[in-house]
Amino acid sequence: MFEERQPVKVAEAVNKVMSFTAKGEKEYIDLMEAEGRYLAEDILADHPIPPFDRSPLDGFAIRSADTNEASKESPVQLTVKETVGAGNVSTAAIGPGEAVRVMTGTIMPKACDAVVMFELADEYVEDGLEKIQIKRRFYPDDNVSKQGEETSEGEVVVKQGSKVTSGVIAVLATFGYDRVPAVKRPVVGIYATGTELLDVNEKLEPGKIRNSNAYMVASQVKEAGAEPLYFGKLADDFDTCYEAVKTKLNDVDALITTGGVSVGDFDFLPEIYTKLGADVLFNKIAMRPGSVTTVAAKDEKLLFGLSGNPSACFVGFELYARPWIKSYLGSPAPYLQVVRGTLTADFPKPNPFTRFIRSKVEYAGNRLYASPVGMDKSQVVTSLAYTDCLAAVPGGSRGYHAGDEVDILLLNPEGSSEPIRDPEKKRSGH
Amino acid sequence: MFEERQPVKVAEAVNKVMSFTAKGEKEYIDLMEAEGRYLAEDILADHPIPPFDRSPLDGFAIRSADTNEASKESPVQLTVKETVGAGNVSTAAIGPGEAVRVMTGTIMPKACDAVVMFELADEYVEDGLEKIQIKRRFYPDDNVSKQGEETSEGEVVVKQGSKVTSGVIAVLATFGYDRVPAVKRPVVGIYATGTELLDVNEKLEPGKIRNSNAYMVASQVKEAGAEPLYFGKLADDFDTCYEAVKTKLNDVDALITTGGVSVGDFDFLPEIYTKLGADVLFNKIAMRPGSVTTVAAKDEKLLFGLSGNPSACFVGFELYARPWIKSYLGSPAPYLQVVRGTLTADFPKPNPFTRFIRSKVEYAGNRLYASPVGMDKSQVVTSLAYTDCLAAVPGGSRGYHAGDEVDILLLNPEGSSEPIRDPEKKRSGH
Repeated sequence: MFEERQPVKVAEAVNKVMSFTAKGEKEYIDLMEAEGRYLAEDILADHPIPPFDRSPLDGFAIRSADTNEASKESPVQLTVKETVGAGNVSTAAIGPGEAVRVMTGTIMPKACDAVVMFELADEYVEDGLEKIQIKRRFYPDDNVSKQGEETSEGEVVVKQGSKVTSGVIAVLATFGYDRVPAVKRPVVGIYATGTELLDVNEKLEPGKIRNSNAYMVASQVKEAGAEPLYFGKLADDFDTCYEAVKTKLNDVDALITTGGVSVGDFDFLPEIYTKLGADVLFNKIAMRPGSVTTVAAKDEKLLFGLSGNPSACFVGFELYARPWIKSYLGSPAPYLQVVRGTLTADFPKPNPFTRFIRSKVEYAGNRLYASPVGMDKSQVVTSLAYTDCLAAVPGGSRGYHAGDEVDILLLNPEGSSEPIRDPEKKRSGH
Repeated sequence: MFEERQPVKVAEAVNKVMSFTAKGEKEYIDLMEAEGRYLAEDILADHPIPPFDRSPLDGFAIRSADTNEASKESPVQLTVKETVGAGNVSTAAIGPGEAVRVMTGTIMPKACDAVVMFELADEYVEDGLEKIQIKRRFYPDDNVSKQGEETSEGEVVVKQGSKVTSGVIAVLATFGYDRVPAVKRPVVGIYATGTELLDVNEKLEPGKIRNSNAYMVASQVKEAGAEPLYFGKLADDFDTCYEAVKTKLNDVDALITTGGVSVGDFDFLPEIYTKLGADVLFNKIAMRPGSVTTVAAKDEKLLFGLSGNPSACFVGFELYARPWIKSYLGSPAPYLQVVRGTLTADFPKPNPFTRFIRSKVEYAGNRLYASPVGMDKSQVVTSLAYTDCLAAVPGGSRGYHAGDEVDILLLNPEGSSEPIRDPEKKRSGH
């Protein structure tokens, strides 16, 4: 009855999943709804930036040749013919000895080729005319932002596969993308299996626990950028589970189940995958928690069989389902960011498998630390609330201790309780 | 005409903003909508975890006293009376010499006090009865997850002010929070000012540019956890702007304007704040970009006057508006995470003000690097698409160079292009 499974290494399991390279189609969405989506194509500059020669500051647009002889001792006087704010166009004919008062962003008046900031122009009124006096020479293009100096027309300004952040939205708006070409999100179905599961709003009863995995996974699916579709929970009955999985697989791009992947009498998922004719990529991984994580493929759709233990389920999703979703969305960075940092607690007992220890990341100076957030048992759910990284403790013949350097997989830290300091020179490395 | 303003330091400006401590009220929302929200109260365990003594593995529940004499040489035989899966309750009366086949998560049968995993129980059938043979002694509570060993009833499992992540959702579901007490999001109004602004879907015309700041800020407001309310754009006309700001301030918890805070002829915001009777907290900060960032307070509501230059606007939001929003939501970590890392480019020209250089964070080994993503000009918008951190280069008498260690303010990096490796012992610091 006890089945021996051959564990694959973590990286090998990831590779097997990532060999499935389905990509989402393109759809157009409103700019205001684009946050967090992925670009389906390169974004091109539909015009140069700046779109025209313009003033980068508040000052006076002049003909630089007028200042050829200007000096402290012999300042040059110019007559201000007009005041033009950003968004308006100078209409006065500007001849020698004349200037235009302009604001930041104002298109350069014809015949002017330099801008003098307010601070360097002494203003006065003479014979009812507004005048300025300038005490140094200016050259052509001094203080002029030239058309196209930042970006040329037709240039790729954001690459396909980029996640739409606030910065990307600024660029999309600049170039007129009120409709954004985005990758259609994969629909990821979710079933929680287990006769022991109650709905969140049900009262506890003996032997039962509330279903937490499905809600957690739905949130992870959203965090990863996909669309969760929660189908409910399934009792431990083979035929029910088989029919449900078979039917709902038609409605999704991938199907996640939680529970039913171990070797217990009611762990039906491996058998269901076989009966479906799906190709089981692996059914055991050399990792804890989540060693029973099983992934199968059927007609290019993936079936993620995650553990029923909350933390094992969480880790299984982040390591295998997340990168597949990001890859489907076209992200060039589908994997969790791994950094090296210091473990702050002891794990003296050797374990043949790599352990992913739920931890909180902390920054001190130029070092990162991973502080385990709870007991290292896969059943433990409450520690997940405080987890923002996973410390990867290698398997092998020895234990690990506070101070050891390990890989830290960053999830999504919130921020800092410390306000920003004014950085000072002496704190530099020099 | 040229106005001298007294710059405050960055930390002082942050302190002034954060002295306004308005907090959001509590509202109840659906668990499935709770992602990214902030908890308005401590979350309590409504039951212990585990909720009952249960088996943490697939095996046989036994009376441990039956194995007192068990050894390799003289194994003990037990009769399996029943098979019980998780979610069901054993109903057989279990006497001496009897056992129950149980699965992971099954509530412990009465009279049983230990569990033997499948691997340690030889199964066989004798006289039509299912039997097991055990070759070693088990003690009371061996392989039993005891009620409450993880969490006691009434314990605080997630603290007020926590951001709702997938891990928090798992905990909320476990304890029956189908409705979640969340902090009401502040409504943050947004006006873009500037006669030069076109709507995103309008064709370019001479002297005009498309409004990108409002869309960017709306996205930043969402990223920070608040609700943006975009009121449109305003031409550079004092009365129009004054009436708009005065009226809409009634509908929001804070109002962000972009543009109009410098010293140009049409920079009306400082004057508007004065006419409103608002208290101007500062109108110049010793930072670049964004030195003209102006913040005022009127009846406990904040008016953020951000620069019209996209990058200055971006930085002004992240440094001042973001922490105020997070504080309103009750987050204990309202500030951007600051880490120390290495600058990868030269900034040879000294600047009296601290510069926040739009950069991309890179991780190599246990070091962080900030690579500037574009020209260091506040007008530059396209570099914002690639910005995921700000390198803080201190002001002062000297320039900065590649290799210098600086503060790095982390925004929201996407992840890694590198798949996870199987960590190996030899890569450890030991």
